[in-house]
Amino acid sequence: MGIKEDVLAKAESAKSASRLMALLTSEQKSRILMAMSEAILNEKDNIIFHNSIDVEAAKESGLSASLIDRLTLDEKRVKALAESLAEISNLPDPVGEVISEWVRPIGIKIRKIRVPLGVVGMLYESRPNVTVDAVALCIISGNACILKGGSEAINSNHSLIKILNESGLSTGLPDGAINFIETADRNSIVEMIKLDNLVDIIIPRGSREMIKFIREHSIVPVLAHGKGLCHTYIDKFADIGMAKKISFNAKCQRPGVCNAMETLLVHKDVASEFLPDMCKAYKEANVELRGCKITKSVIPDVIEAKDADWSSEYLDLIISIKVVSSLDEAIEHINVYGSGHSESIVTDDRACAEKFLAEVDAAAVFHNASTRLHDGGVFGFGAEIGISTQKLHARGTMGARELTTTKYVVYGSGQIRE
Amino acid sequence: MGIKEDVLAKAESAKSASRLMALLTSEQKSRILMAMSEAILNEKDNIIFHNSIDVEAAKESGLSASLIDRLTLDEKRVKALAESLAEISNLPDPVGEVISEWVRPIGIKIRKIRVPLGVVGMLYESRPNVTVDAVALCIISGNACILKGGSEAINSNHSLIKILNESGLSTGLPDGAINFIETADRNSIVEMIKLDNLVDIIIPRGSREMIKFIREHSIVPVLAHGKGLCHTYIDKFADIGMAKKISFNAKCQRPGVCNAMETLLVHKDVASEFLPDMCKAYKEANVELRGCKITKSVIPDVIEAKDADWSSEYLDLIISIKVVSSLDEAIEHINVYGSGHSESIVTDDRACAEKFLAEVDAAAVFHNASTRLHDGGVFGFGAEIGISTQKLHARGTMGARELTTTKYVVYGSGQIRE
Repeated sequence: MGIKEDVLAKAESAKSASRLMALLTSEQKSRILMAMSEAILNEKDNIIFHNSIDVEAAKESGLSASLIDRLTLDEKRVKALAESLAEISNLPDPVGEVISEWVRPIGIKIRKIRVPLGVVGMLYESRPNVTVDAVALCIISGNACILKGGSEAINSNHSLIKILNESGLSTGLPDGAINFIETADRNSIVEMIKLDNLVDIIIPRGSREMIKFIREHSIVPVLAHGKGLCHTYIDKFADIGMAKKISFNAKCQRPGVCNAMETLLVHKDVASEFLPDMCKAYKEANVELRGCKITKSVIPDVIEAKDADWSSEYLDLIISIKVVSSLDEAIEHINVYGSGHSESIVTDDRACAEKFLAEVDAAAVFHNASTRLHDGGVFGFGAEIGISTQKLHARGTMGARELTTTKYVVYGSGQIRE
Repeated sequence: MGIKEDVLAKAESAKSASRLMALLTSEQKSRILMAMSEAILNEKDNIIFHNSIDVEAAKESGLSASLIDRLTLDEKRVKALAESLAEISNLPDPVGEVISEWVRPIGIKIRKIRVPLGVVGMLYESRPNVTVDAVALCIISGNACILKGGSEAINSNHSLIKILNESGLSTGLPDGAINFIETADRNSIVEMIKLDNLVDIIIPRGSREMIKFIREHSIVPVLAHGKGLCHTYIDKFADIGMAKKISFNAKCQRPGVCNAMETLLVHKDVASEFLPDMCKAYKEANVELRGCKITKSVIPDVIEAKDADWSSEYLDLIISIKVVSSLDEAIEHINVYGSGHSESIVTDDRACAEKFLAEVDAAAVFHNASTRLHDGGVFGFGAEIGISTQKLHARGTMGARELTTTKYVVYGSGQIRE
């Protein structure tokens, strides 16, 4: 079978299974997910064995150490996969939720309910845990799915899918609900993003280039992870100790991710109190400092920031620092340069906090907390399929609920349009 | 100023005003909308005068009678515009709604709230009432807007926008919140759909060709009205009198609109009881009947339906009729041929109804009611910006709430990511 026929056949299988997926009860979905969790644990040696084939091949082909780390499954990580399935099995079922219900003067009762999207197409790279998270989120949200993982994880994914499918099918998962594209050929992606009559949403996770290609070429609606150019603003009423702790965490705890901080904004009244200690801590953590002129006047050895720095998502141990003369200037800077991802204010003044939270336009705004907390797990969603910086459909961290849509159910007794 | 510069300047003005729009209170928005409603009434002669210039020009250029009718504003229609503004001023404010709120074990409180999208770009044709509806829905949802109406309504729209802006500005509407593209040149559309850094959503209303062009070329997300291929299914447990009333209404009350019925599905057990009377009524209303073989065996003078009929949105006094042998066959037919818009079952059996409502995949499903009721006004939304058949962001009739997005507001006390 050619690639085109293979993708089409799997999409048709998913579409057909999606009707049955939508009708599963919460108990049935829970049972399936628990069976999958147990199967993953039982088969952990098998999974680690298949994963080691991928890891060996990755080493031979010279993949970077960090990519090999992302690819590797050890006993602890396999156990985490099983735990994640168990956790998601316990989440509230988003499907069937009555969002609102009302009666109109003509006597019809309208109920707006939550229903599955249908078929989710998931395109991703590297980490085999995405396979398990995607399947789990699709099942709890009543969707069928078609997955295409990266070629570097093909043996791991194949092994995981086999275990998930076998344990699922034996506990009531509809046949054809989970589909996996085996080929490494990227033409399978090109085929999948054409099938707008069979696939309801495409979720790409991976390199910027891959996401850009899919955004530009997909006819199927795309829900993608956005860029994160996040700020922390240290207000003049900030608790300086807390400000230092939060700023350090937001930059250094994991600098390569979207919710890490890139630019630190500091109110002029606290710059000379806050910056020396803060910059010392950053230097000790090997953070490269780039500052505005005022920052440089306080900390002479910082590199002078260029205009381009305010628009840079470093994703690295580099930070830009700007001293601002007011809360308004901080808000304005964020609304001009931020990517609308995660923005934080440190202040003990409630009015300043509320102004910042209301006027900063972002998916998530934080008061006295690190931007690194913007995460599906931290927020309690069990797992996340990404963090959206778009405004339509889903904004911020996306979990099972973001894989649903709504339906109006109208009960009448013969009403017509007059 | 060239077209490109004009559109850019208006988008920048809208973007800047959108920050202030987002902060208006419900009372402020209500006051603005009521002032606009009064101003429309006070200026009704002025509006009708300017409209008459458009109507005269349309007659001279040979526009069809139905387009001229859509364009025309008489005293009754102007009053309806004022009433619509007053009605929308009384709607619940979607902005600030706390959708959910929870506390996580680490002590952060997360609040998911509803916020405006920002800047709404509205592209439409013909009917000047869309100008008023769009402005009203944007204001109640806290958005700034850029409107581009059709060249045939330019004088009417110009007059309406002037009145809305003057009455709005004098009661607290932020300067630059309502922008209108004066030129008839369609290049202004091409410019607007490029501005993804300034415009948050494009809503096209008009011809299929215009919507298709915008969908294919817009970088800004598009929310568009979908095609309506709607069915009514007469179950074997239907009240035949009600079935006839609903089927007649769904086809004939206004055949040219998206929620009118195109295909009637009839259970075989009631075909001979239901079809003769029903077809007689349709014939008297000049409806062209196209039926399957079984329909033809009951009503010999119907035209035999071709395969293409089941996929046809006639938007006219034409109907296709199919006799099915079961509820399952009806559901299957709808899920294959329907456009996911509005689907109705007529039955007195609750289990049959619930099965249909659950298994038919559409934006709105009706039990014992006409598909023609799928409408923002009928549903109580004051006005609608269209009916979506897509599954992301908004599905079904769209009102003010669909012009909003969400924001996570997180309250901490120094929490960081461990």
